Amino acid sequence: MLTLKECQDLIHVCLKEVSLPEFPSNLYEPIRYMLEPEGKRIRPALVLLGCNVFSDEVSQAIPAAIAIEVFHNFTLMHDDIMDKSLMRRNRHSVHVKWTPNIALLSGDAMVIKAYEMLAEIKGPSFFRVFSLFNETALKVCEGQQYDMDFESRTDISEEDYLHMVELKTAVLLAASLKIGALIGGADNNSADLLYEFGRNIGIAFQLQDDFLDVYANPLTFGKEKGNDIVSNKKTLLLIQALKLATGPVRDELLHWLNAECFDRNEKIERIKLIYDQLHIDELSRARVKTYHEQALAMLDKISCTTTRISELREFSDMLMNRIK
Amino acid sequence: MLTLKECQDLIHVCLKEVSLPEFPSNLYEPIRYMLEPEGKRIRPALVLLGCNVFSDEVSQAIPAAIAIEVFHNFTLMHDDIMDKSLMRRNRHSVHVKWTPNIALLSGDAMVIKAYEMLAEIKGPSFFRVFSLFNETALKVCEGQQYDMDFESRTDISEEDYLHMVELKTAVLLAASLKIGALIGGADNNSADLLYEFGRNIGIAFQLQDDFLDVYANPLTFGKEKGNDIVSNKKTLLLIQALKLATGPVRDELLHWLNAECFDRNEKIERIKLIYDQLHIDELSRARVKTYHEQALAMLDKISCTTTRISELREFSDMLMNRIK
Repeated sequence: MLTLKECQDLIHVCLKEVSLPEFPSNLYEPIRYMLEPEGKRIRPALVLLGCNVFSDEVSQAIPAAIAIEVFHNFTLMHDDIMDKSLMRRNRHSVHVKWTPNIALLSGDAMVIKAYEMLAEIKGPSFFRVFSLFNETALKVCEGQQYDMDFESRTDISEEDYLHMVELKTAVLLAASLKIGALIGGADNNSADLLYEFGRNIGIAFQLQDDFLDVYANPLTFGKEKGNDIVSNKKTLLLIQALKLATGPVRDELLHWLNAECFDRNEKIERIKLIYDQLHIDELSRARVKTYHEQALAMLDKISCTTTRISELREFSDMLMNRIK
Repeated sequence: MLTLKECQDLIHVCLKEVSLPEFPSNLYEPIRYMLEPEGKRIRPALVLLGCNVFSDEVSQAIPAAIAIEVFHNFTLMHDDIMDKSLMRRNRHSVHVKWTPNIALLSGDAMVIKAYEMLAEIKGPSFFRVFSLFNETALKVCEGQQYDMDFESRTDISEEDYLHMVELKTAVLLAASLKIGALIGGADNNSADLLYEFGRNIGIAFQLQDDFLDVYANPLTFGKEKGNDIVSNKKTLLLIQALKLATGPVRDELLHWLNAECFDRNEKIERIKLIYDQLHIDELSRARVKTYHEQALAMLDKISCTTTRISELREFSDMLMNRIK
């Protein structure tokens, strides 16, 4: 059995071997730039781990793993244009380093490259993998569209938000595991259970990310806190607060949401106090825990030896470690 | 044997049957809008005609034909963002009717939909079709990148320009025919000959389009003339003129290319006069004729009855009719 770390290392090596033409350099250079930094490579590692639950021949899942990582980076390249994000992994985004047009077209070439890699699977699982890949890719686009739509809407329900998170983040993690499982020869039921594990852990992960934006220990948290609060992002924390707040607490919350000029730190501090009054932190922790437990319950149902899934259990613990 | 017209009609019907989810509407509505107008559907019709040369079961090529039309419209949706084109088929472009972000993401969903349709082929030709589709799609991106790169370059050679036209326009026509042929069961040699026919006719078509921008009869020409001249587009006409012009003729040509303020009609008229002096019209006609003849020569080499390829011959004559 490979460990998560071993899978990630294997992906690093294989990504370096992806060959891209030299010209036109404005098309292919941004793709190289995007694939260069040693990211966490979570999704392709999950493809390999998913395969490894059912087969010792993990190498057969490498083309699909690389395809998924290239696809994921294509979505990041285009998301950065749409969200006007200037930085990505501590470097300029492609649309900043080059131009938005170049980021658009390089992204297009990148999604086609992902399909080109998928074509290398060729085994009996190809059509099921291809179909799941397409279905998932469309869902990721749907998630991004809902996320953009929500920016200008004020009536987002918990259900709406969870649906968006599922599409934008969770299904790609889920599909990575299931694609690996299919290539590894899993039966349908086991492949679906791995998918459900990935879907639940994906939602838990995003909810935890939203939680950490407010409650992380700044000494150990890698990025700036409070961005979601400053931008009024309709996370589950804000949606729950809007649902629970009444009287003067509600008035103050709405005041901060509508304020056009404010002191960044003051807004973060005041909204955090409101969240504390409403016990939003506990609600959030409970929600993350529920999804985490639902994920683990799926693993228990898979018919294989415990060692075969121990690495996935460790993976989910590692993901959830930050607020346990 | 189906006629071009019959193929086009079949495509119209099948495109209407493409099912897209209702939500998120900002993702799927632009795709419906883009596929709605009854365009010429040249590429999918070529898939069907290419198949029909080798098989009477044209219906087996329909998923690939639709995939190619959806892919082509994806490139148009993204090209319109990059080129800031406000209109497409006499209606607002998607990025104008909605927003650039929506056109970007809908385009992304559209290319995934194209692959979803390709998955329906499933026959023994699938992997060869899939591979040619990927290769061609990347070339189309390369062509668009070169076209954008050329805008800011002044050293474009005839060879550069022809290479760009081949990538941006010709290979998709060529691949449409070859994909149809592969699905229809063509042998490798015949499929390659159809590809070469398509590639040559595609280049001829684009060169003719450039020619018509200057020399079309305005009474029968569907669009505004002179746009390439006004925007200094480095078409073969301009590249040839820059190569041939000397002395005061060259000075005047450079004057118009460098002029920042000018009367549109005067610039068109004066540059046309320079082209006339340099016999650019004859050079262009000759070039179009050469590619057209090279295309027809490919058809002659295909081993099948004359009736099997008569419709392709008529198609090429129809395309070339405008300046013959």
